[in-house]
Amino acid sequence: MDSDFGIPRELSPLQQLRSQYQPQLPPCLQGTTVRVEFGDGTTVAKAGDAHIIARAFPHTLGQPLAHFLRATAKVPDAQIITEHPPIRVGIVFSGRQAPGGHNVIWGLYEALKVHNTDNTLLGFLGGSEGLFAQKTLEITDDVLQTYKNQGGFDLLGRTKDQIRSTEQVNAALKACTDLKLDGLVIIGGVTSNTDAAHLAEFFAEAKCSTKVVGVPVTINGDLKNQFVEANVGFDTICKVNSQLISNVCTDALSAEKYYYFVRLMGRKHSHVALECTLQSHPNMVILGEEVTASKLTIFDITKQICDAVQARAEQDKNHGVILIPEGIVESIPELYALLKEIHGLLKEGVHAVNISTQLSPWSSALFEFLPPFMKKQLLLHPESDDSAQLSQIETEKLLAYLVETEMNKRTKEGTYKGKKFNAICHFFGYQARGSLPSKFDCDYAYVLGHICYHILAAGLNGYMATVTNLKSPVNKWKCGAAPMTAMMTVKRWSQNSGSNSIGRPAIHPATVDLKGKAYELLRQNAQKFLMEDMYRNPGPVQYDGPGADTKAVSLCVEDQDYMGRIKKLQEYLDQVRTIVKPGCSQDVLKAALSVMASVTDVLSTISSSSTSGQQFA
Amino acid sequence: MDSDFGIPRELSPLQQLRSQYQPQLPPCLQGTTVRVEFGDGTTVAKAGDAHIIARAFPHTLGQPLAHFLRATAKVPDAQIITEHPPIRVGIVFSGRQAPGGHNVIWGLYEALKVHNTDNTLLGFLGGSEGLFAQKTLEITDDVLQTYKNQGGFDLLGRTKDQIRSTEQVNAALKACTDLKLDGLVIIGGVTSNTDAAHLAEFFAEAKCSTKVVGVPVTINGDLKNQFVEANVGFDTICKVNSQLISNVCTDALSAEKYYYFVRLMGRKHSHVALECTLQSHPNMVILGEEVTASKLTIFDITKQICDAVQARAEQDKNHGVILIPEGIVESIPELYALLKEIHGLLKEGVHAVNISTQLSPWSSALFEFLPPFMKKQLLLHPESDDSAQLSQIETEKLLAYLVETEMNKRTKEGTYKGKKFNAICHFFGYQARGSLPSKFDCDYAYVLGHICYHILAAGLNGYMATVTNLKSPVNKWKCGAAPMTAMMTVKRWSQNSGSNSIGRPAIHPATVDLKGKAYELLRQNAQKFLMEDMYRNPGPVQYDGPGADTKAVSLCVEDQDYMGRIKKLQEYLDQVRTIVKPGCSQDVLKAALSVMASVTDVLSTISSSSTSGQQFA
Repeated sequence: MDSDFGIPRELSPLQQLRSQYQPQLPPCLQGTTVRVEFGDGTTVAKAGDAHIIARAFPHTLGQPLAHFLRATAKVPDAQIITEHPPIRVGIVFSGRQAPGGHNVIWGLYEALKVHNTDNTLLGFLGGSEGLFAQKTLEITDDVLQTYKNQGGFDLLGRTKDQIRSTEQVNAALKACTDLKLDGLVIIGGVTSNTDAAHLAEFFAEAKCSTKVVGVPVTINGDLKNQFVEANVGFDTICKVNSQLISNVCTDALSAEKYYYFVRLMGRKHSHVALECTLQSHPNMVILGEEVTASKLTIFDITKQICDAVQARAEQDKNHGVILIPEGIVESIPELYALLKEIHGLLKEGVHAVNISTQLSPWSSALFEFLPPFMKKQLLLHPESDDSAQLSQIETEKLLAYLVETEMNKRTKEGTYKGKKFNAICHFFGYQARGSLPSKFDCDYAYVLGHICYHILAAGLNGYMATVTNLKSPVNKWKCGAAPMTAMMTVKRWSQNSGSNSIGRPAIHPATVDLKGKAYELLRQNAQKFLMEDMYRNPGPVQYDGPGADTKAVSLCVEDQDYMGRIKKLQEYLDQVRTIVKPGCSQDVLKAALSVMASVTDVLSTISSSSTSGQQFA
Repeated sequence: MDSDFGIPRELSPLQQLRSQYQPQLPPCLQGTTVRVEFGDGTTVAKAGDAHIIARAFPHTLGQPLAHFLRATAKVPDAQIITEHPPIRVGIVFSGRQAPGGHNVIWGLYEALKVHNTDNTLLGFLGGSEGLFAQKTLEITDDVLQTYKNQGGFDLLGRTKDQIRSTEQVNAALKACTDLKLDGLVIIGGVTSNTDAAHLAEFFAEAKCSTKVVGVPVTINGDLKNQFVEANVGFDTICKVNSQLISNVCTDALSAEKYYYFVRLMGRKHSHVALECTLQSHPNMVILGEEVTASKLTIFDITKQICDAVQARAEQDKNHGVILIPEGIVESIPELYALLKEIHGLLKEGVHAVNISTQLSPWSSALFEFLPPFMKKQLLLHPESDDSAQLSQIETEKLLAYLVETEMNKRTKEGTYKGKKFNAICHFFGYQARGSLPSKFDCDYAYVLGHICYHILAAGLNGYMATVTNLKSPVNKWKCGAAPMTAMMTVKRWSQNSGSNSIGRPAIHPATVDLKGKAYELLRQNAQKFLMEDMYRNPGPVQYDGPGADTKAVSLCVEDQDYMGRIKKLQEYLDQVRTIVKPGCSQDVLKAALSVMASVTDVLSTISSSSTSGQQFA
């Protein structure tokens, strides 16, 4: 299995050029002396979850944020790390492949070697299974040679994105102990980082000295929260998809006879679809979050598309491009209910061929209505995270089929007078996921790799490497680390019996924020995109000249830098403390007390009523 | 219909940069004085076709090749064109969209304006239908602004690729006469250029003064012959497809659990699949030409793939990437026979639902064996050129299905011991066709546009613009024009009655030459590609730095420049004539006669036995 991994390979001219590209480091990570400043202890996003999360994470909850500062930074209580005893670190690809993943390894390797040439980095071959089986490859300059700035996860490979069962965590513990690892770096998305957090707690409980670090690497872009602005791979995947979507737009406009229904990989939520829409301006996108918010049925969505087709035909436009996130099938209420029934029956051991007879009357009616290919796909076993096999369910074909049926009906009734409706369906995912990473993803992943080293040098356990202020140039990036427990929430759902069930604390995927600026930008332009064919072609990913340094629109429009703003607040508090030192005038003290009383009042009120933003809904 | 065409639009940063790119002209086209040298009159490729083609083209057969030379070239009998009276030219997108098409218009426009500012270029809006309906847009600097070096055909649009019926050619004649056109430039592939040749003859017969010029623009790369080395669009389409194929290869290698079956757009023949294989090194490709040559059945192909899967599994490789040209369905004998029967019945007016009952026993057995999606797709009406709707027939899914069935069988029998076979299917076509054109396609199309002007300035009718020596840099390109009749062949097939039927003379699509160097390169590497995962990622199309000037592998390995070599021969003959002038010694004359006698002997023998290469089979 491991025979293919990590072998040198022939590179194309562009790959060669890219393999020579050296990402920049932000000033705070340059040199061998780094200062770590710890903020206040962290809390969890939803106050109501605190006690459940506290029970699951007695050792790793409430740890402070960490900020890495340049050696010359004048912060009085920052910890200066100048001693670098040799350490051994393991690294594993746990999540699905995402462009840029290799650069996390490279960045970590560079940081290890800069600080102590005796440091060792072991890559686990074949993902989590390689970790359990202790299959390793020592990372060296030679091994990295043809993998720097290259796509895929093929340097080490990946298997299942799960380190969760008792057997699995015990195997991981044994591997780390046997291999005498000081640190284990886990690369992946929400599931892998949730596993990393639980593993950190498990290691702490077991008094294992290996510190666990998580790195946010997922094309889905759904590992987003106060501390994490972006995920490695998302930038590239959106650029490659946007390239293809705009090619399809150009094609549609050239022949004016097809509607393209393009389904996009990206799991449950619609971050990829939103970003691609903002980059390439197709006529329409159906976001899962909109469907959920408005409780749209499959027939509502069909009608929405049909009305759009009809409105365009009235302006003599018989072509168009419509984006559909792969996760939408779980957002459409009646399809989701049907899926849940099917998955329940599958779990009970009912064979797929017998399921249709055992569905509830309502689900059965819906199921029978669906075309054969859709029936077959809905009957597939769910994934390890209990979601449907989204990449296999061709919702775009279902919608194209329903729209065609309805347009034919409207034609017969005389309400639609345009050309015959013709759809072509696409699924964009695999062909983007293995791409050469964009410059942004190369830089971001490389810097995250460096941060992993500093987290371990600071002796932190259960942290995720973070970079904020990403929309600015690299020399303005702020590097830090946040405890993964602070990103956790708990899901509750009611059982048939009426009692409540509570899920395992987890880093849940963030939904597209319907109050956020990226979505607002879409809404402002949606009507123009729909009717005016404002197709925009960002073109293939470039590594030089205009476009090479472009970043995701959704990253650039948001005011993020939560960690920067948290620091800013601490500075204000420190300033107040400095101004109102013992010895200050009565007036100053009086004013300070009065103002601070009202500040704390306001904030307490907001905090208790807030559910901390619907991105954690 | 035309409301969207030719309107200015918002460009992305990369599109803007590209819109400012100025392609170079080869020395022979620089300045306003160009010399035209005429070669000998042309013949047709197959001697046996001559009389049939002669009957169809009394006016335009046997015209000489034309070479455009730089003003300073010292060729005694070259015609120097210095007078440039104002002319009016029409241009139409007749074939399917291909990246670079817009640059033909731009190149022609530039040439027209450089030679006489009173020249006029009219674009027909909406393709051939716009020509018939005389819908025009005058091309100006403003109109071209946002379309230079951009993909698609959306500046003018396209509809049907047909100018063939009596009604259609009469409408074209009327349009050219009404609009007082001196020239009509038709952009497209084999079908469109065949139509252009017949239209040229029809115009000559009708004493219409409009000259017809063809331009080889097709992503299929199948308009190849002695005079035409490459087609506009092929380079880009292969690069974009190769980018995606290698992304899929990287993906396959990262997770090691999927076989990707990738079907490629490219019509009947396998040029695109061959070129993409040479660029990205997937594990396997099934060329239509190999299937035809070896008369492989669908079961032979299935077995070939299954054996490969099994051999790879024995080396612990449970992943792979297999390319399948869309035209393969017409190369597989029993599927082709079935398709012909179905198309025959459809022509007789039999409704699709009744066809299965009217098939011959053999075809019926095959049809019933096929999975439902395939049945449905085979029953689609054929295209205007009588071929099946190749883009709609999911041969990759059929093969994946048959391979899976066979691998399951082998697993049960115990002959296959690898992991469960999992396939993911893709069709790459539309998402590449609308791409921003590569530098090569930008340059090539722009130069062809210029040549169109010179063909018209020289008063030639029924010619195609040609550039040879394309594998060299632009300043070494040789520009010329070849009569389209010289590219024609005639197809013969036996009827049920035993009599022979003869097709209309046409420029037939070239097959992949199984004796050519490109195919030889594939064969030399096929075993390594299959077993050793030598995946190569050319990356996204670049416009700067390494890779930006890369050209198609199949273009670079062939010794083409037929037109250059024809010229070289003429030079030899001229030299003999100079040496053996009246007054030369008896010895020289005697030697010359003896040598030339044997030369003519050898060539006559070869000519009569040759069927002129199997690329015209």
